[in-house]
Amino acid sequence: MSTFVLVHGSWHDGSAWQAVIDQLEAKGHHAFAPTIAGHGKGVNKNVNHAQCTQSIVDYIVSKDLNDIVLVGHSFGGTIIAKVAEAISNRIRRLIFFNAFVLNDGESLNDNTPPHSQALSDQLARQSGDHTVMLPFEIWREVFINDADLELARSSYAQLSPQAYQPWLDKLDLKQFCSLPIPKSYLYCTEDNVLPQGDWGWHPRMSSRLGLFRFVQMSGSHEVMFSNPVGLAEKMIAAGRD
Amino acid sequence: MSTFVLVHGSWHDGSAWQAVIDQLEAKGHHAFAPTIAGHGKGVNKNVNHAQCTQSIVDYIVSKDLNDIVLVGHSFGGTIIAKVAEAISNRIRRLIFFNAFVLNDGESLNDNTPPHSQALSDQLARQSGDHTVMLPFEIWREVFINDADLELARSSYAQLSPQAYQPWLDKLDLKQFCSLPIPKSYLYCTEDNVLPQGDWGWHPRMSSRLGLFRFVQMSGSHEVMFSNPVGLAEKMIAAGRD
Amino acid sequence: MSTFVLVHGSWHDGSAWQAVIDQLEAKGHHAFAPTIAGHGKGVNKNVNHAQCTQSIVDYIVSKDLNDIVLVGHSFGGTIIAKVAEAISNRIRRLIFFNAFVLNDGESLNDNTPPHSQALSDQLARQSGDHTVMLPFEIWREVFINDADLELARSSYAQLSPQAYQPWLDKLDLKQFCSLPIPKSYLYCTEDNVLPQGDWGWHPRMSSRLGLFRFVQMSGSHEVMFSNPVGLAEKMIAAGRD
Repeated sequence: MSTFVLVHGSWHDGSAWQAVIDQLEAKGHHAFAPTIAGHGKGVNKNVNHAQCTQSIVDYIVSKDLNDIVLVGHSFGGTIIAKVAEAISNRIRRLIFFNAFVLNDGESLNDNTPPHSQALSDQLARQSGDHTVMLPFEIWREVFINDADLELARSSYAQLSPQAYQPWLDKLDLKQFCSLPIPKSYLYCTEDNVLPQGDWGWHPRMSSRLGLFRFVQMSGSHEVMFSNPVGLAEKMIAAGRD
Repeated sequence: MSTFVLVHGSWHDGSAWQAVIDQLEAKGHHAFAPTIAGHGKGVNKNVNHAQCTQSIVDYIVSKDLNDIVLVGHSFGGTIIAKVAEAISNRIRRLIFFNAFVLNDGESLNDNTPPHSQALSDQLARQSGDHTVMLPFEIWREVFINDADLELARSSYAQLSPQAYQPWLDKLDLKQFCSLPIPKSYLYCTEDNVLPQGDWGWHPRMSSRLGLFRFVQMSGSHEVMFSNPVGLAEKMIAAGRD
Repeated sequence: MSTFVLVHGSWHDGSAWQAVIDQLEAKGHHAFAPTIAGHGKGVNKNVNHAQCTQSIVDYIVSKDLNDIVLVGHSFGGTIIAKVAEAISNRIRRLIFFNAFVLNDGESLNDNTPPHSQALSDQLARQSGDHTVMLPFEIWREVFINDADLELARSSYAQLSPQAYQPWLDKLDLKQFCSLPIPKSYLYCTEDNVLPQGDWGWHPRMSSRLGLFRFVQMSGSHEVMFSNPVGLAEKMIAAGRD
């Protein structure tokens, strides 16, 4: 049995994983889903990437979690890489789940297509508080394309504006590249958040991991909502040894 | 419940959709499958692309269909783009199903690999009436690779020579690119009619749609024959809102 | 009903196919799984590619097998191409199953990424007998990523060091390119032995076949161990006519 720590992506908070946690626990695993600093509703969004990382490190250390399978979804991939540098001795395996794997010295924004960056810049400027909110139309068509409209709406209601600074911070990842922690890449094949092909998640992001275990399932970027049963099964396979 | 209008591809006529229509109607939807002008057995094949388009526009207008989900398969993708320009107010969503999405000013032939173009040119010259008939061997191996030989033969018997001119006509699609109609791309993952990779359907064609809903299923180019149940389900998901 | 001859890949011997053979025979087919010369435990590993090929030719001729569906897995793809040149009249169809399809004049090693070649060179030098043994970590993560650890270990115990010379030999394949034998490519979508993308199995290798039947299933490079039931079904579909 494993101990999973699930790190959510942009706009989400830890509550996004509830149905997945239920599945993991039903199979006898432990699972935790901290909310990254500056994420969730009604909190101060004035955070940078280092603060985001530190909040997850603090959570794991304060609960004294060990031998963990650390999962990062989307933006969460940039967090778990830095968490792994900080507390590598507590981590048994990293799972990047349709997640960014940054090269040393890059930001998340360096890895998104020009038209996405332009839209993000514009939304951040208009926000007044350096955040980006995802338009519902994009959520429905590109993020959660495998759900019905009702689920698209109810899951959207759980989101909140994303702090923009963590997408802009360039990360020092020299240490990460040499960590001996085993890694998996879990890829959902209908994910269109990064356009498939040259800018896609896989194999562009996954191949940066060096040796990694590749696990694949059908579904959108948001299978924690649209297929939590299937996602939990694949997480267990990705992290089983 | 939705109203589907299904536009077939080259060599086919409206009867190709019969099993899919049965499925859609069994789920409570309405479905129509017009035959494009110059297509089907025993008709005059001397048509151009504009005449093909007009025949579908006329069908929809004469039946006074509204709020439709307009599906185009393969060559049919080039038709629905022009139909959408003509009667955008009648269309709720476009579904490109393993379909050509042309750039403004291009023809279908501009989007096929050189060896395919050469074969088409040769077959059209040899035909005597500027048509192209698909050799059975290519149909069986490349179009309907997921069927048994019996189904490959019975479905082939439904085909008829394809008018070549509509593949050569360069389309003015400036208006299409700015239409606000929602779009989906439905992709069958064993389709080898366009060779997967640089010349493939997805993401090459799909990415030209801008914002689109991506839906995927296993199967060949001809799942309307080999898996009409699965295809109807995915069409419903692709067009549900 | 068909007669299958299954040609294994590197490190394997004919016993790797046992569960698949059981499935094929249960469906009424005949199936044979010769061991390539210089492969298997406790044999002389001093062989070149021509000797490997000849051993399979001899096997088929000595058993007087005809109208066969000849399957090559991985390295076995380089063998069946040369076997097809030698005894084309005995072969009904070739199935390349996550297999190398070499261009005329190339070796297997010419088709692997630089870092893989460097590792192979190093392992061969260190071996003392010009063989390469696959490290367990790579087997578990990259070859049999869809299995549990127990199956990863038990299947690894069946492997033996691979003769290196057959990977280095440049093959004359001019005759193969013009053989009229029908061909299929069977691709497992979680195979990460060749990194997906520019260096991947499909469509890089498959497209070299010219006209071919494309069949796809989920699974790793080693589905003969992790999913023999599914593999047998897809082989039957790939070879049914």
